[in-house]
Amino acid sequence: MDISAVNALPYEDFVNIFENVVERCPLIPAAVWTRRPFVSLGDMEAAINEFIDVLPDSGKEGILRCHPDLAGRDLRSGALTRESREEQASAGMAALSAGEAARMARLNHDYKERFGFPFVICARMNDKANILQQLSQRCLSARPAERARGIEEVKKICRLRLQALVLPDAPNKL
Amino acid sequence: MDISAVNALPYEDFVNIFENVVERCPLIPAAVWTRRPFVSLGDMEAAINEFIDVLPDSGKEGILRCHPDLAGRDLRSGALTRESREEQASAGMAALSAGEAARMARLNHDYKERFGFPFVICARMNDKANILQQLSQRCLSARPAERARGIEEVKKICRLRLQALVLPDAPNKL
Repeated sequence: MDISAVNALPYEDFVNIFENVVERCPLIPAAVWTRRPFVSLGDMEAAINEFIDVLPDSGKEGILRCHPDLAGRDLRSGALTRESREEQASAGMAALSAGEAARMARLNHDYKERFGFPFVICARMNDKANILQQLSQRCLSARPAERARGIEEVKKICRLRLQALVLPDAPNKL
Repeated sequence: MDISAVNALPYEDFVNIFENVVERCPLIPAAVWTRRPFVSLGDMEAAINEFIDVLPDSGKEGILRCHPDLAGRDLRSGALTRESREEQASAGMAALSAGEAARMARLNHDYKERFGFPFVICARMNDKANILQQLSQRCLSARPAERARGIEEVKKICRLRLQALVLPDAPNKL
């Protein structure tokens, strides 16, 4: 599907196709449908990012809270969305050693206790060692900085999910 | 569950329990979790309404676009959320005559063509005749008025869904 086909979608199809480009937040594509026509995939991505940016802090934290833990209970119980399952598997989260799993669980717990939202990182752009290292570092951060950092990761995840659904822009549109 | 039990929920449980108090918008309870502790169910409802009110117009339209048509394709295909299915059934939407169904489909189509979002009404507070009459009238309205009217209906639906999940406030909390 190219951006012209995206622009031609009725909102019902648009919302169903893009409902999880931001995890469990169909409200976000449903809102940016108002902004059509998009001149490019980059333009659509920018519209999503701008919508996220104008949300109050509680809304940004709400987006983070719609994300599952990495290697957490939703992975173990099979309750992850398809996108999250594939992303977590690509970063080795589905195949941790017992020691790694215990360390991840402890750090996820500490992070959530401190910030009231989960650690979010673009799993496709990181490996297991990197994720454990960043989680351990980011546990020491401050809430506003982590809120902003988590949202930057949400935008990276969104970009990759969009690229899996829409053909890349022609070079003159970039 | 009373409001004290609600206030004691970790965000994961809070989001999972209240994920559909606004149709397909877990982001909204996930955002208002920041506002705990709630002094009453009314306080929690007010927090949800305030979050909705500060969204830009595109976000309010996005909420409406997360709602299914009344007596539409999601009802016929069995794709409705549990809450919507029960609400539509209570208003007789699952048992329309062929003539009523055809009229509803035509009016829903006209409404969406005009406004770019679906007709939303609190089905539990209306019957079939009333819904058809209001849909036919509201097709003649203007977009800003319909956006506001739809959001008022979303808040009524949300109130009833909250009341199905949380015990009523004690009289001194009302």
